[in-house]
Amino acid sequence: MVASTPAERPEPDGSDVDSTLPTVSETSPTVSEIGEFAVIDRATRGRVQAETTIVGPGDDAALVAVADGRVVATTDMLVQGRHFRLDWSTPEQVGRKAIAQSGADVAAMGARPTAYLVSLGCPPATPIAVTDGLTDGLWLEVAVSGGSIVGGDLVQSGQVVISVTALGDLAGRPPVLRSGCRVGDVVAVAGRLGWSAAGLALFGAGIDALPDVLAAHCVPSPPYEQGPIAAAAGATAMADVSDGLVADLNTLAHASGVGIDIRSTDLVVDPELLQAADLVGEHALGWVLGGGEDHALVASFVSRDDVPQGWTVIGVVIEGDGVTVDGASAPNAGGWDSFQR
Amino acid sequence: MVASTPAERPEPDGSDVDSTLPTVSETSPTVSEIGEFAVIDRATRGRVQAETTIVGPGDDAALVAVADGRVVATTDMLVQGRHFRLDWSTPEQVGRKAIAQSGADVAAMGARPTAYLVSLGCPPATPIAVTDGLTDGLWLEVAVSGGSIVGGDLVQSGQVVISVTALGDLAGRPPVLRSGCRVGDVVAVAGRLGWSAAGLALFGAGIDALPDVLAAHCVPSPPYEQGPIAAAAGATAMADVSDGLVADLNTLAHASGVGIDIRSTDLVVDPELLQAADLVGEHALGWVLGGGEDHALVASFVSRDDVPQGWTVIGVVIEGDGVTVDGASAPNAGGWDSFQR
Repeated sequence: MVASTPAERPEPDGSDVDSTLPTVSETSPTVSEIGEFAVIDRATRGRVQAETTIVGPGDDAALVAVADGRVVATTDMLVQGRHFRLDWSTPEQVGRKAIAQSGADVAAMGARPTAYLVSLGCPPATPIAVTDGLTDGLWLEVAVSGGSIVGGDLVQSGQVVISVTALGDLAGRPPVLRSGCRVGDVVAVAGRLGWSAAGLALFGAGIDALPDVLAAHCVPSPPYEQGPIAAAAGATAMADVSDGLVADLNTLAHASGVGIDIRSTDLVVDPELLQAADLVGEHALGWVLGGGEDHALVASFVSRDDVPQGWTVIGVVIEGDGVTVDGASAPNAGGWDSFQR
Repeated sequence: MVASTPAERPEPDGSDVDSTLPTVSETSPTVSEIGEFAVIDRATRGRVQAETTIVGPGDDAALVAVADGRVVATTDMLVQGRHFRLDWSTPEQVGRKAIAQSGADVAAMGARPTAYLVSLGCPPATPIAVTDGLTDGLWLEVAVSGGSIVGGDLVQSGQVVISVTALGDLAGRPPVLRSGCRVGDVVAVAGRLGWSAAGLALFGAGIDALPDVLAAHCVPSPPYEQGPIAAAAGATAMADVSDGLVADLNTLAHASGVGIDIRSTDLVVDPELLQAADLVGEHALGWVLGGGEDHALVASFVSRDDVPQGWTVIGVVIEGDGVTVDGASAPNAGGWDSFQR
């Protein structure tokens, strides 16, 4: 098993490996040349707002319709050299990843994303081809997840920083919390596992093969629609896999006061992962169990009959605490700590 | 007139003047020593949540009650060395400023802040005395503005970056937009003008006097409650003064397709500003007209009789475009551009 990390590997001394200014082409003007308001205009003009947007970008704040009477809200920050590298990812991929990370959190509550707010910090010498790529990526992923970007902020910073807040709609359902697992529930997963970690391993080894795996590291594919589907099917608990399958199941187990046993033979190890593992000399199952950032969804259901199409049963809720794999203590149980790796 | 800037002055080459690691005392452990989850625990444990918080920090996302059926949402990012300096401001002051900046935007729509989401990026060597101070400041200002912090994110970054999203409640009223000024309306202001710019001038000159003015630069005092009061009184347009009085009135004038004439004799120039102006050899009225970051509120009303207590009439909406002072072209009309200064 490998100790995969869900983010880009920083240098051992904590410095960033990619703290250089973003560059694209020498012909692109910079954000300081065209100015803040022109950049914002390029990011917002002509974009299609969701039906729930009452007031979009341009005023002091946005106004979003919330028919449910409750709104799901979550926020995430991505930092250049820490959560993405502009020498590995295109600006468009970074934008997509930023939306996916917050959108997956909304889905993991059983909700549908309705609105996003995006703050971008970047150096003044950032080419507008980079900010254009980022905003195109943001809007592309929003088109996948649902909702629209209703507001944001643009500031000057030393490295590229993106902060995304996502709002979501539960459509009258109760939120699906992490604490709802009950002994006897089955545990299932929707979406890909291990792909981002496999891509990271390829990047780290400098192996330019398996483009789909490399792309999966740059842009996760959260199964957004499966969040509300699982909630409607009676999911008792749910989370998205941001830190790693074992680590995130551990948060469910801990919050619910139970144990979770995974059957390794029920885990899908995609053939692409086996090929990547061969190339870098690592174990694909380690990526599936320990790799984060794919933003798959894991959930528990009262019975196998409740598990909707698109989900794969991988284990069961048991008495105890923590996560076991085939009854044995699980590796990679520590989880991701932003300051420990 | 001075060309006051609403943010800390960066060096002419665009580099940050305060990009050093935050330090407090050599006895404070660092965030990397105690870890992400311990820092988050210290930021959230025992804090009082608003009545509207259905699910607070700790799950994939928060859930907030929205009785109105619409939610106001806005986001702002603050960057060390750009929007605050840890050699001028205490961490607690930085936290308060971060909340105030977004909370004032909610008030400027005529709404009451109900919930905040806060993302913090900081270097691994940041002392927890700094993160504790920041989070104490966040919660202190939330107690002033109303609402509570319902979620957030903590990541590693090269410089301290804080991103705050604020949600707000209009209590059934229409939002007060920037575009509602009509010819003949009176224009009024609530809250302080020029204080932040005066404090910046003192800091810039290295003058350690007038502590209230210095503090006003580090922590704005938005008149949160006047936003809903103005909305209830029928304000036709409203904004907060983040970039400077003339600059922000310009956005109202432009959005409304009108002109605004300010009477300089109606502007309150507080005696502390006159003292500060004497000390640094600048003009206090320049700070009042051009200084940003005090997050006062400016609004237009159909008639003087509509203007609520706590507001001072400073001008009138006229035909034309842009802002004039005593009928003459206004200085500092350009507004703040994050990448031009």
